[in-house]
Amino acid sequence: MTKSKCLSLIFLAVVSVSASTQLLAQKATKKNATTKSAMPLYEKYIDDNMDAHLKEFVELIAIPSISSIPANKTDVAKTGEWIVNKLKSIGISTAQLLPTAGNPVVYGSWDKAPGKPTVLIYAHYDVQPVKESEWENPPFAPVIKNGKIFGRGASDDKSGVMISMLAVEAMLKTDGRLPVNVKFLFEGEEEIGSPNFKNFLEKNKELLKTDFAVTADDAQYNDSIPAITTSSRGAAQLEFTVKTANTDAHSGQFGGKTPNAVVAISQIIASLYDKAGNVAVEGFYHKVLPITAAQKETIKMVPYDPAKDMEILGTTAEVGDPTFSPLERVWYRPTLEVIGMQGGYTAAEGHSNIVPGNAMARITCRLVNNQDGKEIIDLIVKHINKNCPVGASVTYKFKPGYASPNTTPTDTKAFSYVSDALSKIYGKQPFKLGTGGTGGAMLSFKEVLGVYAYSLGFLLPDEKWHASNEFFRVSSMRKGQLVYCYYLQHLADEESKVK
Amino acid sequence: MTKSKCLSLIFLAVVSVSASTQLLAQKATKKNATTKSAMPLYEKYIDDNMDAHLKEFVELIAIPSISSIPANKTDVAKTGEWIVNKLKSIGISTAQLLPTAGNPVVYGSWDKAPGKPTVLIYAHYDVQPVKESEWENPPFAPVIKNGKIFGRGASDDKSGVMISMLAVEAMLKTDGRLPVNVKFLFEGEEEIGSPNFKNFLEKNKELLKTDFAVTADDAQYNDSIPAITTSSRGAAQLEFTVKTANTDAHSGQFGGKTPNAVVAISQIIASLYDKAGNVAVEGFYHKVLPITAAQKETIKMVPYDPAKDMEILGTTAEVGDPTFSPLERVWYRPTLEVIGMQGGYTAAEGHSNIVPGNAMARITCRLVNNQDGKEIIDLIVKHINKNCPVGASVTYKFKPGYASPNTTPTDTKAFSYVSDALSKIYGKQPFKLGTGGTGGAMLSFKEVLGVYAYSLGFLLPDEKWHASNEFFRVSSMRKGQLVYCYYLQHLADEESKVK
Repeated sequence: MTKSKCLSLIFLAVVSVSASTQLLAQKATKKNATTKSAMPLYEKYIDDNMDAHLKEFVELIAIPSISSIPANKTDVAKTGEWIVNKLKSIGISTAQLLPTAGNPVVYGSWDKAPGKPTVLIYAHYDVQPVKESEWENPPFAPVIKNGKIFGRGASDDKSGVMISMLAVEAMLKTDGRLPVNVKFLFEGEEEIGSPNFKNFLEKNKELLKTDFAVTADDAQYNDSIPAITTSSRGAAQLEFTVKTANTDAHSGQFGGKTPNAVVAISQIIASLYDKAGNVAVEGFYHKVLPITAAQKETIKMVPYDPAKDMEILGTTAEVGDPTFSPLERVWYRPTLEVIGMQGGYTAAEGHSNIVPGNAMARITCRLVNNQDGKEIIDLIVKHINKNCPVGASVTYKFKPGYASPNTTPTDTKAFSYVSDALSKIYGKQPFKLGTGGTGGAMLSFKEVLGVYAYSLGFLLPDEKWHASNEFFRVSSMRKGQLVYCYYLQHLADEESKVK
Repeated sequence: MTKSKCLSLIFLAVVSVSASTQLLAQKATKKNATTKSAMPLYEKYIDDNMDAHLKEFVELIAIPSISSIPANKTDVAKTGEWIVNKLKSIGISTAQLLPTAGNPVVYGSWDKAPGKPTVLIYAHYDVQPVKESEWENPPFAPVIKNGKIFGRGASDDKSGVMISMLAVEAMLKTDGRLPVNVKFLFEGEEEIGSPNFKNFLEKNKELLKTDFAVTADDAQYNDSIPAITTSSRGAAQLEFTVKTANTDAHSGQFGGKTPNAVVAISQIIASLYDKAGNVAVEGFYHKVLPITAAQKETIKMVPYDPAKDMEILGTTAEVGDPTFSPLERVWYRPTLEVIGMQGGYTAAEGHSNIVPGNAMARITCRLVNNQDGKEIIDLIVKHINKNCPVGASVTYKFKPGYASPNTTPTDTKAFSYVSDALSKIYGKQPFKLGTGGTGGAMLSFKEVLGVYAYSLGFLLPDEKWHASNEFFRVSSMRKGQLVYCYYLQHLADEESKVK
């Protein structure tokens, strides 16, 4: 369900990367990556094998691993197996599927660097559902056009799975070894809120012991400016159905005195907000803390351009409480979004003159600070019950997986290793960013394994995560692998100095 | 789209007619029908052929003549042809399809009673769309259970087509002649608002010349009490789409500052009503006249039981302006119903964390007095534009066919012939009723052909017109045919006295 992605801001100088500009960008990157020393062997390997790796990537995206649809369960399993096979083929002989109460976790470790630190790399291989009719190319028949790979999960987050594996492949195939020990951990339930992940970590605490952790389920600021996410929102979900009758009714025969479920659910939804666009649910903001000076400072460092950000979606206005800035609203304030609603006759064709007897809506909240998913859902239920119009009744379908908000400190060695690697390859210091997204699993790493998971993913914010026509940039494949390789080597070098 | 049906009230003593009670009812009816003279020959014919006729009826219902879905166009045509063939088989050799700008009209006349009056019988052979998943039996694979025929259109209005044809068949097959001249006129676009019907009447004015008209697209009060509808509401329709972005957005990445199309459309819909449940669109009620003493008297004569009426749908409350009674609201006051609404991710399974970029809703208004469909739609558009939230824009899809409200006088010969026939077969005087439904075509009869079309249909108000699991009672098949036969004979007898 939820996502630990970056920024909501983002303006991309180059939305459609042409072949020639792509080449220039690659050369510039090569130059940056090789200023200090000769071009590392892995870099040549990455370039030489790009076409073959893209083919593999297309294969991986083609498996519809939608975790929220039970019918896709075998596809989810197939995806896990595909990754296990890939890991084995690059020399991670321990690769396997580890069971959870839900979808299995892909695990694989390379531990032939005794005395060296261990790095755990997180990503997820499950994807969001699709609205098939809105895709220009089928979501599970990926195509590569103008330097972009189109397909569900291309960006979120099969790119994370692929890039981290390929970086390790490049080092193993060229050096025959890695500079540190590595543990891969690819989850299959991130898009449904990681309901079994914390429990999985607890059960496998010894196996997963690590010194450092990064998550490849995250984004950069844009194509040329790197970023590290330092806070994410929590999430909680709810589905509810408003019933006004056992059946739809003839709108002439009964219309005028019969409660209308679509009108009732609209009134309920409208009641969830005040005029400023704030959530009107009593108690919703009670545990929300004031925005801190440090948070304001983080925002200040980012060159946010509302017009360019709106251009990504084609929106014409920014909404929400004007006493907060747009980035404050997205990074540090909670939301209540209605993600879908249906009632009555809505087939593409036809006009059915009914008074609808029932209507359904789904809600996702993004949470901050001390807000607790369960508590928030309870407050919403209370609000809906209180605001339910005469003649209507509501039933609820609770969703598993309330994810907590998360922040990571920036004054740690772990942060600086990630930051150094990004600076090296991009030639620029990364922005520190908040995110409106959610990384349900990230907090669990700290709580169970005692390590912060720092963001090291290469998604870009215009790549239509969760939406139709999702894509990933080919150029990010290369850049991402270089960053991972450099990161592993740099971490090994720096940590050996410490010793 | 709209419907010239009866009452919104209705309590049915016998909701599920058992075989034995059905038999008793039939015998009682027979007794009534034969007090004055020996049992007419047609009555025996009707009884003897009931099973064969039910089989034909099932055949007719099985053709999915949904007029509002373009893909069903050939089925609509097939249905028309089926009826033409049936008419020919009973001796209406002139039966044919007459073209309109849309679906053809089935026409057939029997004119071998020179000097005798002509009666035009109206019904419609098109049906409403279906929500397939909600049907216990497939809507176009009719089944007969417990004295009920289940299927889309079984009641509305293929029953009207079938009963009127079978009554004429019974007289022709037994007497070899009809007591009056008869013209059948079965429309194929009633459920989309009869957009071409008035024009058709005008073009075929000479051919359709008649002394009397009845519509078989109407209802009785209940299984044992007859009724004549004396007023119906008009109708107007509108579809609109609210757009907030070119694409759905990740609810974390953009949620908090990005306008949500589902929330926006909910706010728009909520704005359409005031707290009392009245329509809040400015000017909506301007042309609505106060309820008259005669209308109040009509209502007073009807034993309306809210509890029993609510039982039909399983509603728990009656809504709307409490300064009007429920029947006043349904018969004599206008409505604005949202008949369907959809936005965001609403597939049965899955949970897609998006901020929806667009949402759609469909509206049907029922109109009274001097309200004009076009004017009302314009007012609604104005209201929506005015109440459109920041960041949202609205586009409209206008539907053809604004039907006018209609009333028929009760002090005419034409009324008394229908009333007498119903009294004769039911053994009770019919109630005079309003209806919240619409008979777009009915007003046209008066305007073009100069005759009022009186209601003579045998639908019953609990038969789920337009809703899922629509059905028609087998017992009404018999009763309806008897009424039609008696009506034609009675009209001939009375009119010859006049001469």
